Amino acid sequence: MLGNFFEDFRIGQKFRHASPRTVTTGDVALYTALTGSRFAVNSSTAFARMIGFADAPVDDLLVFHIVFGKTVPDISLNAVANLGYAEGRFLKPVYPGETLSAVSEVIGLKENSNGKTGVVYVRSTGYNQNGVEVLDYVRWVMVRKRDETSPAPAPVVPSLPDALDPDALGDACPMIDRSRFDTGLSGAPHRFADYTVGERIDHVDGMTVEEAEHQLATRLYQNTARVHFNQFTEGKGRFARRLIYGGHVISLARALSYNGLANAFHIAAINGGRHVAPLFAGDTVFAWSQVLEAAEIEGRPDVGALRLRTVATKDRPCTDFPLMDEDGRYCPEVILDFDYWVLLPR
Amino acid sequence: MLGNFFEDFRIGQKFRHASPRTVTTGDVALYTALTGSRFAVNSSTAFARMIGFADAPVDDLLVFHIVFGKTVPDISLNAVANLGYAEGRFLKPVYPGETLSAVSEVIGLKENSNGKTGVVYVRSTGYNQNGVEVLDYVRWVMVRKRDETSPAPAPVVPSLPDALDPDALGDACPMIDRSRFDTGLSGAPHRFADYTVGERIDHVDGMTVEEAEHQLATRLYQNTARVHFNQFTEGKGRFARRLIYGGHVISLARALSYNGLANAFHIAAINGGRHVAPLFAGDTVFAWSQVLEAAEIEGRPDVGALRLRTVATKDRPCTDFPLMDEDGRYCPEVILDFDYWVLLPR
Amino acid sequence: MLGNFFEDFRIGQKFRHASPRTVTTGDVALYTALTGSRFAVNSSTAFARMIGFADAPVDDLLVFHIVFGKTVPDISLNAVANLGYAEGRFLKPVYPGETLSAVSEVIGLKENSNGKTGVVYVRSTGYNQNGVEVLDYVRWVMVRKRDETSPAPAPVVPSLPDALDPDALGDACPMIDRSRFDTGLSGAPHRFADYTVGERIDHVDGMTVEEAEHQLATRLYQNTARVHFNQFTEGKGRFARRLIYGGHVISLARALSYNGLANAFHIAAINGGRHVAPLFAGDTVFAWSQVLEAAEIEGRPDVGALRLRTVATKDRPCTDFPLMDEDGRYCPEVILDFDYWVLLPR
Repeated sequence: MLGNFFEDFRIGQKFRHASPRTVTTGDVALYTALTGSRFAVNSSTAFARMIGFADAPVDDLLVFHIVFGKTVPDISLNAVANLGYAEGRFLKPVYPGETLSAVSEVIGLKENSNGKTGVVYVRSTGYNQNGVEVLDYVRWVMVRKRDETSPAPAPVVPSLPDALDPDALGDACPMIDRSRFDTGLSGAPHRFADYTVGERIDHVDGMTVEEAEHQLATRLYQNTARVHFNQFTEGKGRFARRLIYGGHVISLARALSYNGLANAFHIAAINGGRHVAPLFAGDTVFAWSQVLEAAEIEGRPDVGALRLRTVATKDRPCTDFPLMDEDGRYCPEVILDFDYWVLLPR
Repeated sequence: MLGNFFEDFRIGQKFRHASPRTVTTGDVALYTALTGSRFAVNSSTAFARMIGFADAPVDDLLVFHIVFGKTVPDISLNAVANLGYAEGRFLKPVYPGETLSAVSEVIGLKENSNGKTGVVYVRSTGYNQNGVEVLDYVRWVMVRKRDETSPAPAPVVPSLPDALDPDALGDACPMIDRSRFDTGLSGAPHRFADYTVGERIDHVDGMTVEEAEHQLATRLYQNTARVHFNQFTEGKGRFARRLIYGGHVISLARALSYNGLANAFHIAAINGGRHVAPLFAGDTVFAWSQVLEAAEIEGRPDVGALRLRTVATKDRPCTDFPLMDEDGRYCPEVILDFDYWVLLPR
Repeated sequence: MLGNFFEDFRIGQKFRHASPRTVTTGDVALYTALTGSRFAVNSSTAFARMIGFADAPVDDLLVFHIVFGKTVPDISLNAVANLGYAEGRFLKPVYPGETLSAVSEVIGLKENSNGKTGVVYVRSTGYNQNGVEVLDYVRWVMVRKRDETSPAPAPVVPSLPDALDPDALGDACPMIDRSRFDTGLSGAPHRFADYTVGERIDHVDGMTVEEAEHQLATRLYQNTARVHFNQFTEGKGRFARRLIYGGHVISLARALSYNGLANAFHIAAINGGRHVAPLFAGDTVFAWSQVLEAAEIEGRPDVGALRLRTVATKDRPCTDFPLMDEDGRYCPEVILDFDYWVLLPR
């Protein structure tokens, strides 16, 4: 219960994480209350069924956070930083009543030159109650060493793609009846073909985060990372405050992105993501997105995929699409740079 | 996604609002946690079924808030103030698992003499997944003009009743078996006949509201009005703070009214309501009610209707029933003056 | 609605409390979000069914809080302090969808020598929708007198055991298939036999509590005790702040105890408990436990019982197991001293 340190990880090592978690309409309601998400497919069983889902699927990011939360006690309890994500794929829809569990495998290890920390790469997989994969992703974290004098392992750094190939997308999305995708009800007329590569979208609204909110969210995911909950200890630490779970920022940015991307009803893949700066309670989150690619998917005449870069800021509206300064450094207000594929009806 | 301005509205214009919303026991649990409501019919499926409901119906105000929330992006995103309600009728019980959607029609328009704003009257209707009306109400809001020089429309002000006729009540309430309405379990012995017109009831308790609470509530309803969530912008605004959704005040007043009105198990109609003053986080809400009318409903030997005026205050207990000062102005602590019909077992 | 005062209680008096409450997966989700609890039996229907439950049972403490909440309006609205618990037994699993109601009987009365208050002992029983007992416990509270001059009743102090006999345990736990209790999924390998009487366990993590969180929790339980919600009044009172419901502390300590007691999947009995000091928003809760007894239960080859003392502190980590000072007084940081039986698989 003190978690693993860098020396405890071995290439090929597998962790079968505790505790399995049944996702319910209670979790869905809380996710709505915490993020304000309005995507019709997740909001309405009637809408979801109309277009081809068996029920309203659980929000992709809620699935991600629950699976991620399970990995924390084994992988990142002693993490200094969550460095990146890659190859995240949603493989099967998750419906209320299904039970998620998670397994991780160590696929990379590299000690840092300071001898105090190292980078651990894991591939984590979420399963439903039937043992079917619902989500698969790689993340890498900087983890403290228990003993600075312990020898460094042979470095292994996995080769990871910048982005998933479009043909790898769509497994968690049943064939959609696009004629029944009612864009009056979903909130905007824009379908796949209405977006242009390079176009930038300001998501307009801002959302201020309270301590109670991010704590509720992170506990809902049974994520036990201590920095999010313990003001007694964190108050004495680097920031003097509790740090907000980076996944909550992703969820808020996604919820805000409904303004402009109302029909991007499914996150099919997470190509990468960087938590550029920390978020604290009292800060207000804004977001904007750029369309990086638009792709058809083989065998899928129903949906098209947009590769998006969504950038979240704190205390800075995104009318001017803040990102980097002239020297190529992130603007100080940028907190998230997230690269992912979404599906839209054609 | 910037919302409609006064010039964008036309008499007879219809809005089919996004996003349909399945109401679940998760929403019901959150509503209980946010308001503390204790009415037995909503709290217990066993109690509700015993008296004649198919299941525990979703709280009337939770239905109202969800329908209301849907209308915000189209009707009131650029509203300066929510001015009033009229002719609100609950037409069909809503049970967990049902999906709500909403449509609004513009029924009145009147530009203000300052030329900067105008009043928009809409009739909004909530439907269940079968297209059956569950709620119908009129509200009017003051909306900014996009361009102050644009011409004023011909003024149309709908004629609205002060209160609904008792015979229009009861559609959302099945025939109740009053002999099985167990007043031991419901919390008080008082039935319809035990109330007297004119009597005033102090609801005794006070409830302090936190930022996280009203934000959770308002997001649960997918209400996107910006003043409730964005401290970055609101901090620079008129109040320097986020404004609490007026509907949250109505819900708190209703929950507090259980003290004295425990058997007023159903809100059958909303005659009118005025958000007299804003509520902010940290304030404590109190409430009292007066019985304005008591009416039998034709064809309903099971229930009687009380027309109530419920007044909510902030930071002022209601032992002395605060309302107006000697000059007929609302006392400074009054925040809500709400006129509605409730049903009680006979 | 002003509650009962000391003079209003009589030995043998029974209260049938309002309002019955259907417990749903919505309540379960909120309980997870409020406490971060990770016990596999409550978290996963698949895990629970595998070992012999009909479904994932509702967390024992959530059941306790809901039953407790019902008793407040009749028993402790005018309480000065919640003094103790005894003979708490969980008698039947509660599953989502079931409806709880509560009855209390006055079993003891003793006026205090100051003539201003008295101690009321009640046995409270929670029932499911079929009238079957699910929980039974004794608590005693110090209640204000309405009139200090009213005569004292003949004192009756019930004789209460320090702890329940192990053979009285287990009714709310079906026969467990311990070969299918997957300790990989439950989070720790330690079964009943792995614990030693006298051993002490630091639960490591700390949890900071926000006003919104304890208010949400306490309203979820429909507990109406005024000290938890009303800053306007409490701000003028003894602590100048809202007091956090003591049950929330018990829940947080239980959730923290997963670190070290992951397989203590069921609270079978509450032997006693003392809320040593108040908790306020902003404080951080830590906890540790000591194994007081280990017992087999007749007829139960599947599970064993540990009697635990769990101590919660505020703003003090529990690495050194804080409890009493040299003079036998509780350390100032100790807020809870809780004595209960848990079941673990053998």
